[in-house]
Amino acid sequence: MTTETVSIPPAQKNMEDIVALCKRRGFVYPASEIYGGINGFWDYGPLGTALKNNIRDWWWKCTVECPPLGPDGEPLSIVGLDSSIIQNPKAWVASGHVGGFNDPMVDCTESKKRYRADHLYVLRHKDEGPAGHMYAYIGGDKDSEANAAKKLSKQYKVDLPSPDLHVTSLVQISTDEFHRIVGPDTKKAGTLTEPREFNLMFETYVGATATDDDKAYLRPETAQGIFLNYKNVLDTMRVKVPFGIAQIGKSFRNEVTPRNFIFRSREFEQMEMEWFCAPGEAPQWYEFWKEERMKWWLSLGIDPANLRFRDHDADELAHYSKMCVDVEYMYPFTAPGFGELEGVAHRGCFDLTQHQEHSGQKMEYVDQARNNDRYVPNVIEPASGLTRAVIVMLCEAYTPTPERSGAKEMLKLKPKFAPIKAGIFPLVNKEGMPGIAQELYMDLRQKFTCQYDAKQSIGKRYARMDEAGTPFCFTVDGDTATDQAVTVRDRDTAQQHRLALDQVETFLEQMIGE
Amino acid sequence: MTTETVSIPPAQKNMEDIVALCKRRGFVYPASEIYGGINGFWDYGPLGTALKNNIRDWWWKCTVECPPLGPDGEPLSIVGLDSSIIQNPKAWVASGHVGGFNDPMVDCTESKKRYRADHLYVLRHKDEGPAGHMYAYIGGDKDSEANAAKKLSKQYKVDLPSPDLHVTSLVQISTDEFHRIVGPDTKKAGTLTEPREFNLMFETYVGATATDDDKAYLRPETAQGIFLNYKNVLDTMRVKVPFGIAQIGKSFRNEVTPRNFIFRSREFEQMEMEWFCAPGEAPQWYEFWKEERMKWWLSLGIDPANLRFRDHDADELAHYSKMCVDVEYMYPFTAPGFGELEGVAHRGCFDLTQHQEHSGQKMEYVDQARNNDRYVPNVIEPASGLTRAVIVMLCEAYTPTPERSGAKEMLKLKPKFAPIKAGIFPLVNKEGMPGIAQELYMDLRQKFTCQYDAKQSIGKRYARMDEAGTPFCFTVDGDTATDQAVTVRDRDTAQQHRLALDQVETFLEQMIGE
Repeated sequence: MTTETVSIPPAQKNMEDIVALCKRRGFVYPASEIYGGINGFWDYGPLGTALKNNIRDWWWKCTVECPPLGPDGEPLSIVGLDSSIIQNPKAWVASGHVGGFNDPMVDCTESKKRYRADHLYVLRHKDEGPAGHMYAYIGGDKDSEANAAKKLSKQYKVDLPSPDLHVTSLVQISTDEFHRIVGPDTKKAGTLTEPREFNLMFETYVGATATDDDKAYLRPETAQGIFLNYKNVLDTMRVKVPFGIAQIGKSFRNEVTPRNFIFRSREFEQMEMEWFCAPGEAPQWYEFWKEERMKWWLSLGIDPANLRFRDHDADELAHYSKMCVDVEYMYPFTAPGFGELEGVAHRGCFDLTQHQEHSGQKMEYVDQARNNDRYVPNVIEPASGLTRAVIVMLCEAYTPTPERSGAKEMLKLKPKFAPIKAGIFPLVNKEGMPGIAQELYMDLRQKFTCQYDAKQSIGKRYARMDEAGTPFCFTVDGDTATDQAVTVRDRDTAQQHRLALDQVETFLEQMIGE
Repeated sequence: MTTETVSIPPAQKNMEDIVALCKRRGFVYPASEIYGGINGFWDYGPLGTALKNNIRDWWWKCTVECPPLGPDGEPLSIVGLDSSIIQNPKAWVASGHVGGFNDPMVDCTESKKRYRADHLYVLRHKDEGPAGHMYAYIGGDKDSEANAAKKLSKQYKVDLPSPDLHVTSLVQISTDEFHRIVGPDTKKAGTLTEPREFNLMFETYVGATATDDDKAYLRPETAQGIFLNYKNVLDTMRVKVPFGIAQIGKSFRNEVTPRNFIFRSREFEQMEMEWFCAPGEAPQWYEFWKEERMKWWLSLGIDPANLRFRDHDADELAHYSKMCVDVEYMYPFTAPGFGELEGVAHRGCFDLTQHQEHSGQKMEYVDQARNNDRYVPNVIEPASGLTRAVIVMLCEAYTPTPERSGAKEMLKLKPKFAPIKAGIFPLVNKEGMPGIAQELYMDLRQKFTCQYDAKQSIGKRYARMDEAGTPFCFTVDGDTATDQAVTVRDRDTAQQHRLALDQVETFLEQMIGE
């Protein structure tokens, strides 16, 4: 029996291993794989769908069905919504997405590769002269950076590291110098186009004629569907400010460079909540939701060392945003740095005011608790990605187990979120063991997603469950018929103990409830 | 106290009343309503989202988490999936949707209205002559039909009903006669175009260039995402034929004439399962799934009198389909007729064979249980709409209650599916009643979606809950402090009985579990 595995830091986890496990065990498949895939799209396999659903249901429960208690000790008032992906295109004009939801983009005319301009950096020599090369590389791509540095050091005959070399962002290069940039994949100068704006919304046409009148968009965020229904909810749900509207659903962004597995994909799922409050109370609610959201991420079983807040600098804020903080996670591909996980934003009254102006519908609220004050509510928005929560859970749970004889790796998922809660095995396929095990399985499957497995050695069965992140295995052995008990084996410790058959359900309920 | 209301037949329910209740109580709102809406799109409000989620979870539980027992008494093997809405466009060429997913469509050049050609009928007079008018009307639209009949009877001076008038489908009218058809909304001849084919898939472009290479489609069905992953599931999930893959998700169809509320919308949610089996066993599985699906619809609490099977005629079958049966429901807008609810289709090996040919990937299965027979599995597909299940539940539950003093109408939803499971009221806002009621509420909300309400008279609170479909209300009254009991009021009977406070949770669990 092995001892407990300790949780290992993200920097020691290999993203390729995680992606491979996800494919091999049915968590995440490349979309349309039999047709060579489609860049930026992923399909969730049987286990990935279950993991995603478990996170989805937990967010919904914590947000809509049983929302947190407010500062006064009373439960907050939050209702759910499920709005269309396609809305009247005027909504996206009002929200600013038609005019301003752009990324500056650079194309390589030779390789046809496309880069987000703000992801490209350029290595220059202080004495490069008017004709000298600058070497572009992708920010955070260590290989590409090293390569660029090597080329430049060779050209200028300087040793590395060199005070003569310095880095600048590509977007700061002036137009007349652009031809001197060496592209990151062609290694040739003059193949990169200047940055041009590229709207991230997918377009389509509703109706049979493809005229501009019929142009519509796939939503790039679920938030606007909430603002569109603010009045409907206010008029029909007997809510009073402050209250929230929450939504989970798919959004689409025609990303220039989808990357890092499901971290940045073109089709993804969001979990967003818009909290409508009196303007004077917005700063307190901002702080409230910031703390609440961190608590929620911790409730998934994530190591606090891998989470942090990052306040946005003033120059980083969207023009309508007064304050914004990201909850960040230390992904294996950002470690030892952190990457975005969730944004909590103070959006002021920007969205409702925009929709008020563009639709002509009053968005004012008459606050009976404040002398019938009239105001357009301010909004605090905790906006996270469900599919991003999935990658975080997979990265966090992924644990190589070289010390074990079975699986080389396992997923230490908190039991509540594990796709399969329990494996049920007969130790051997004889002496009545399969019968008892099947009976247990037939009982448990009514309440828990569990799996009956009688194939191969018990060690191999444990290993399969470890890889799938199944927290408990119950084995019926030669003693079960006599003592009416089974062996429970714990995924993380590989420890086993004996448990009465009639206690299995209660045990599982308790472990999953935690 | 009133007596139990009896369930009333669909023909006596008014669709406008149902749509109005849905809007007023936050079940379904028109999408983008503040911008004048967008034809064929709907948003689900707080109660509609909860109802939809409850149906979704029940289907998932019955299909994936705890699938039915097969003919041998063992649970079937079915896994879940969540594939992308956007896939490699080659997938839709292979499936036949790029070439053949068309509706014949007729435009009115004057009113700009558009009709599905196969929904239009034409009333003709047997002696109409070469210049006489024919009157078009929309099939099933009684007003429009009566209007057409009136016009024609006036023109030919015949009384109604008349053996001289007869009806024919618009698609059977020859090209040179088209100018004689009087349009259903302009009432003028010669305004309808001839039918032309119109592909129902929404198109978009992935990447920055809008060239044909980048053209992609929003999926018109979730089924193909399953076929695309058949190999992945087979390779990674240790399943053996027969097995199923199930998926719930949004699909999009650019319907020519979206209509009947959420019955036929352009964005909708499907619940589909593909059952892969040996070709020789397909007919038995087809019968199995036909029966299982009817059982499932009955489990939602639908009156058996409002459900029926309708076998497709041979000339109605898709070219790849060997057998198909619809589960039909008597909607208020089809009564006394029935309309489509779910299709159970025997698709043969059409889809897998198509993908095998187009992708070059082998889809053969080696059946170790059958002497290593090699075959492309046959598929039985029970395909239903989640959003269609929502409209059925709303129509079925909708019950006018003229005999009651409170709400004029209520929703008799089976407790398991009700958006709010319980209302918790203090009888009056004094004598400690609110404190006890709130304590009960704080306990119950951990497990059940419930609502605390202390506003207005108890009768009005009951009425609000009746309209929302809340099955039970618990009222704390003057005796509660002494007898530690509350009054339970049943939505459907309006009967009340006394229940110990510590029995409320068990009572609710039992009622919801049924």
